[in-house]
Amino acid sequence: MSEPVAPVNLADKLSLFSELWSQKKVAVLNDYEVKLAKLKGEFVWHTHEDTDELFLVISGRLTIQLRGADVVLEPGELFVVPRGVEHCPMADEETAILLFEPTGTLNTGDAGGPMTKAAELLG
Amino acid sequence: MSEPVAPVNLADKLSLFSELWSQKKVAVLNDYEVKLAKLKGEFVWHTHEDTDELFLVISGRLTIQLRGADVVLEPGELFVVPRGVEHCPMADEETAILLFEPTGTLNTGDAGGPMTKAAELLG
Repeated sequence: MSEPVAPVNLADKLSLFSELWSQKKVAVLNDYEVKLAKLKGEFVWHTHEDTDELFLVISGRLTIQLRGADVVLEPGELFVVPRGVEHCPMADEETAILLFEPTGTLNTGDAGGPMTKAAELLG
Repeated sequence: MSEPVAPVNLADKLSLFSELWSQKKVAVLNDYEVKLAKLKGEFVWHTHEDTDELFLVISGRLTIQLRGADVVLEPGELFVVPRGVEHCPMADEETAILLFEPTGTLNTGDAGGPMTKAAELLG
């Protein structure tokens, strides 16, 4: 007889933290990570030279500012920022997102600065 | 002035097809693909020897049968099947999922057979 194995419930994981702009790792796929984050306000302009970066909005509303274009994501919408493309996430209201990118990708990319923070394992 | 760039709306993409057990590519991240699929019934037991495989349920209810364990996923829940682990997806009701895995990963893994189908690019 099969015994149950628990999946990752995104809402449950989001209920475990309130910190903004802090990536929480919830799953690993090969050498990639699935991370959750809560955003409000404006981040810093930065670039990931070596990797694309996937944003999927779970709740709220995310604007990914690009140089010369804005991408506005509602819940259930995703966007891949191509490697080498400068971008700056911004959210007027608190917004929960799922990120997918290679293990070790830093949140601020090439920009560094005080908002730089390594992803943390969540629960 | 910034001009809008459209994100990928998962519900819109799901409205574009009704075929079951057919993976539709909606985004690419480095050498990985984001795919959507609609499932109903039972798939085939198979293994991906070279890669983990991520399932995220969007609507419906998915059971990922493992040998000796079942993982039941509701909307907003994800699970990563580790490489080398035999599994068989099953859905009693029509279920929409998002898949994340390396480009070229075949749906039936090592099993082959009539349900084998390469992912197709979706509008």
